[in-house]
Amino acid sequence: MKKLLVSIAMTMVCGLASAQFAGIMRGQQPEKLPDGFKPASTNTFLANYPAVNAETRQVMFKVVAPTAQNVQVDLANKKYDMTKDDKGTWTCVSDPQVVGFHYYAILIDGVAVMDRNTEAFFGSNWESSGVEIPEGAEGDYYRFNKNIPHGQVRSIYYWSDINGLERHINVYVPAGYDENSSTRYPVLYLVHGWGEDENGWSNQGHMANIMDGLIAAGKAVPMIVVMPSGDIKTNSDVRTATGDVTQIFAKNLIPYIDKTFRTKADKQNRAMAGLSRGGMQTTSTVFANMDMFGWMGTFSGFGGMRGANNTVETMYNGVFKDAAKFNKEMNLLFISTGTEEGRPTAAVEALKKHGIKVVYHESQGTAHEWLTWRRALNEFAPLIFKK
Amino acid sequence: MKKLLVSIAMTMVCGLASAQFAGIMRGQQPEKLPDGFKPASTNTFLANYPAVNAETRQVMFKVVAPTAQNVQVDLANKKYDMTKDDKGTWTCVSDPQVVGFHYYAILIDGVAVMDRNTEAFFGSNWESSGVEIPEGAEGDYYRFNKNIPHGQVRSIYYWSDINGLERHINVYVPAGYDENSSTRYPVLYLVHGWGEDENGWSNQGHMANIMDGLIAAGKAVPMIVVMPSGDIKTNSDVRTATGDVTQIFAKNLIPYIDKTFRTKADKQNRAMAGLSRGGMQTTSTVFANMDMFGWMGTFSGFGGMRGANNTVETMYNGVFKDAAKFNKEMNLLFISTGTEEGRPTAAVEALKKHGIKVVYHESQGTAHEWLTWRRALNEFAPLIFKK
Repeated sequence: MKKLLVSIAMTMVCGLASAQFAGIMRGQQPEKLPDGFKPASTNTFLANYPAVNAETRQVMFKVVAPTAQNVQVDLANKKYDMTKDDKGTWTCVSDPQVVGFHYYAILIDGVAVMDRNTEAFFGSNWESSGVEIPEGAEGDYYRFNKNIPHGQVRSIYYWSDINGLERHINVYVPAGYDENSSTRYPVLYLVHGWGEDENGWSNQGHMANIMDGLIAAGKAVPMIVVMPSGDIKTNSDVRTATGDVTQIFAKNLIPYIDKTFRTKADKQNRAMAGLSRGGMQTTSTVFANMDMFGWMGTFSGFGGMRGANNTVETMYNGVFKDAAKFNKEMNLLFISTGTEEGRPTAAVEALKKHGIKVVYHESQGTAHEWLTWRRALNEFAPLIFKK
Repeated sequence: MKKLLVSIAMTMVCGLASAQFAGIMRGQQPEKLPDGFKPASTNTFLANYPAVNAETRQVMFKVVAPTAQNVQVDLANKKYDMTKDDKGTWTCVSDPQVVGFHYYAILIDGVAVMDRNTEAFFGSNWESSGVEIPEGAEGDYYRFNKNIPHGQVRSIYYWSDINGLERHINVYVPAGYDENSSTRYPVLYLVHGWGEDENGWSNQGHMANIMDGLIAAGKAVPMIVVMPSGDIKTNSDVRTATGDVTQIFAKNLIPYIDKTFRTKADKQNRAMAGLSRGGMQTTSTVFANMDMFGWMGTFSGFGGMRGANNTVETMYNGVFKDAAKFNKEMNLLFISTGTEEGRPTAAVEALKKHGIKVVYHESQGTAHEWLTWRRALNEFAPLIFKK
């Protein structure tokens, strides 16, 4: 690959026309796709495959692997055998898929690898391929809207004394942040799930499009959204750790954000939400710091009612025991899930019966995946910082 | 992979301890690496391999592929055969490498794929694996420095009428941009190479660390740096097109930047530079708009002296013909290269002989790769916007 790059560069610098170079270039030109199929929005620039049929919601894959013995696609819990043509190109067409974003892998002789045709989406602890099955107009809320003002997602490294290294965060600031240079904003801390990273909410979640739309429509208060990494190297059991987030937030991240951005730096103007394991990190962090957070959401990640001792009175160190006290201290406890995944209905019912105010949301027809969480953010964001 | 994610999520939500889950978690724990080897800085969180020996500059790779017949690493123009152990894990150790950042691929039964252990670096039109061979203290200029103020890289989508779609750019603003809310800044447009994208200068190039350091040391003027994509869909020969950048810049990008950021919006405060093909896009764009740009740099991408007709007088439509005029209109023509790649010495000598003022820089011992371009930026940025 580097050889190729050098070869091309040398070609360009030296002005020679190389057949290899031209061939590759031409190979990238749009080719005719089967009727009804279009390149997925998740593909790299000019890659035709995976191609999606918006009507049937089938996906067609193509892999060039002349010397492989067996090539498969692993998508939504099913492995599809691909068929090889005489040029060594393998293809297959999937079953109809649920709308939204799905990770997938290519299996080259049994080894799961990323498809070269898509952008990289970090999930399950590696840079995975992904494919977006488009919704109709109901998906407009997470698409780019050229007719409204846009916020910015800022890539920032800050120093963490706890880690002893620089940590990367993404920070969304709403449209007008630069122009309204004396305005201060509330802050939502928004965390990804297990195996994902601080880029997930932007890349897979399209959070900027969702927030831009809600704010432009007057449905959500203009706010800053901080997206940190939930993987923190202070605990020996780093991958499952939830508590570590708490000390990084309290000692390094929140002070850094309040110093660097024009925030409203108090409990009533600070929220936290997360998906899957990030939901668990949200409960760990918020319940240990009820004086710091006034609003919270767990998307497919509420861990209540676990184990024999976890009654409403005892769960989370008894934070729910005094319902009136909890309701007074916490403006919003938002719990959401997809209807096609494990639902925390028992916990939610028990909380409600105990007198805890819960806003419960179900995403119809979706499982433990990003469309569930886009919808959750779209429901959650309008409810916070309004008191 | 999704199955795994769902399984884990269900485990977490339902509170069941699954052996698979625990096994994966434990598998991610740090293991003992061979003496002198440390995980590369380019690895994903907690991945031990590729491991780099800073002294010998060798790289050790590890790939889990129990069912593959043959696994190789393709690094710096050489394919290394990997050796399989009884658990299906393949390893190999490379020859000593040049310091800096190198793309590489894993070959699974002959098919080039990305290594699951590294972050994704977009190069040669796919999300590639990469490995950083650390320099000693001489590499400090591109490393994060916790003791200086930091700028921000802002991820922005703007609407392009020419493309009829949203286009992604990254924009670096220097430290103090938010606080000094009436200050206006000059703008450098900085373009990636063939097969790369608008994230390359941040991810592979560490441009924010370089600019932060130069500005903090007073070597460079505080400036905005705009990093667009050089791949534009208006030309049928999209991959080789250089001219397309010109119309996108003039009609969409520059007006958008001058409207959105506090720029000094004139020729003396606008520069453009690019690497490899981005250098060619720089010459195309700047020479067609000498009234818009006052400073320019081509890093491993000066295409002069190509073909029989390309004398100094005729190259680039005669822009150099009147040397005095060119020198008056262009404050800086910076041309750089690595010593281990094709060098534009003939063109540079001819330009100088003709009376054109050229600043020529060579990166010692490096080829057509990112360390060459980090060094080029570090040399170029201090020279612009000073008149």
